[in-house]
Amino acid sequence: MIHPSAASIKVLGFDVFGTVVDWRSSVIAKGEQLGQAKGITIDWAAFADAWRGAYRPSLDRVQKGEQPWTKLDNLHRASLEQILTQFKIEGLRNDEIDHFNRIWHRLKPWPDSVAGLQRLKTGFVITTLSNGNISLLTNMAKHAGLPWDCILCAESVRHYKPDAEVYRLIPELFDLEPEQVMLLAAHENDLQAAQKHGLKTGFVHRPLEHGSGKASSIPPAGTFDFVAKDFLDLADQLGV
Amino acid sequence: MIHPSAASIKVLGFDVFGTVVDWRSSVIAKGEQLGQAKGITIDWAAFADAWRGAYRPSLDRVQKGEQPWTKLDNLHRASLEQILTQFKIEGLRNDEIDHFNRIWHRLKPWPDSVAGLQRLKTGFVITTLSNGNISLLTNMAKHAGLPWDCILCAESVRHYKPDAEVYRLIPELFDLEPEQVMLLAAHENDLQAAQKHGLKTGFVHRPLEHGSGKASSIPPAGTFDFVAKDFLDLADQLGV
Repeated sequence: MIHPSAASIKVLGFDVFGTVVDWRSSVIAKGEQLGQAKGITIDWAAFADAWRGAYRPSLDRVQKGEQPWTKLDNLHRASLEQILTQFKIEGLRNDEIDHFNRIWHRLKPWPDSVAGLQRLKTGFVITTLSNGNISLLTNMAKHAGLPWDCILCAESVRHYKPDAEVYRLIPELFDLEPEQVMLLAAHENDLQAAQKHGLKTGFVHRPLEHGSGKASSIPPAGTFDFVAKDFLDLADQLGV
Repeated sequence: MIHPSAASIKVLGFDVFGTVVDWRSSVIAKGEQLGQAKGITIDWAAFADAWRGAYRPSLDRVQKGEQPWTKLDNLHRASLEQILTQFKIEGLRNDEIDHFNRIWHRLKPWPDSVAGLQRLKTGFVITTLSNGNISLLTNMAKHAGLPWDCILCAESVRHYKPDAEVYRLIPELFDLEPEQVMLLAAHENDLQAAQKHGLKTGFVHRPLEHGSGKASSIPPAGTFDFVAKDFLDLADQLGV
């Protein structure tokens, strides 16, 4: 059944890490490749979780003004150096660390992401609305075949989510009312912030984001405008 | 033969109006449609030229600071009202004028544009680098099937070409040296400004931009890094 509010929505903005791509198993896989090449034997799942664990604190430092605007690639690079030390990984050249840091440009989409976005693109403008930087999201799309209509993100306004500037960006650029724009995300806090600025919201369940057995719960009916199992289910609900 | 400097180039930025799309015959065709629907008989080619003639002066007012930052859609809308008066076209409703103003979101690509960009996209990141605004370029791409990897433009930096900010944008976002980025345009002044900021440049000849018999001349060898008949010729020269 097509959801009644689908007709008024013009643009879909997508959170990316966790919602569109599976950052965790991608980082683990590339870590294991590096480990084999360099003879490093550590728990790459713990490594992936530690690196991602440094993400929110690094954004917070920029948001609180403790650090000037810094694109996510550079925040990732700084936290990577700390995580390498923490896991006692030594002897990598600078260019090897740079290359490893760009794992985030080559993350794997969830199995439904490409086919789902292709369907959604037939009825809506589809854009990223991520904390990732423009080159990261552009390279990721090229690598993974994500068919975005445009790339919008924190870097477009030099503010990280959940700052208001990010959620106001799509209505402003497309001359739309906030309720004509919907944010899709696997994270309730992102969606709650979008609601505060009047956007429609769709929760997409990604039970494997943090590994098996660590699924987030599905929010109760009425919390968000849409709750979807994946992008194909979302396309069904939106009638495309 | 593949040009020797092709290997070092990573991102291609494209001027859009005239270079990728045929604004003039698109505006004429939509004008004639409006004319038939409303019983307006004027010279739509003269109308198109007058509207486009107001473009550069309107950008200049923003660049000189006589007017605050205004996106191209709104500059087009203001000049459209003057041109309608000049051509004695009366009685259009506001929403009809808005719709007509969005002709610029639905311009037709040159015959080689889509196929050429598809080939170029296999070897390079391809992005707009236009004075058009983000929604205009996004809607145009969707309408015409232009396969951009991302949408970058004057609105991304709130400066119109030939301001430095526009030419510096791609190297800054993609962490590249200016010479790893090439601007493609059918207009020598745009390319000359790009050269000033160290970008590689490619002239694409669009002899019909201003109508038949008004072709711009082809710049002498050595003026720009590449001179191409169209995007397919450019793809040949770049080896993709």
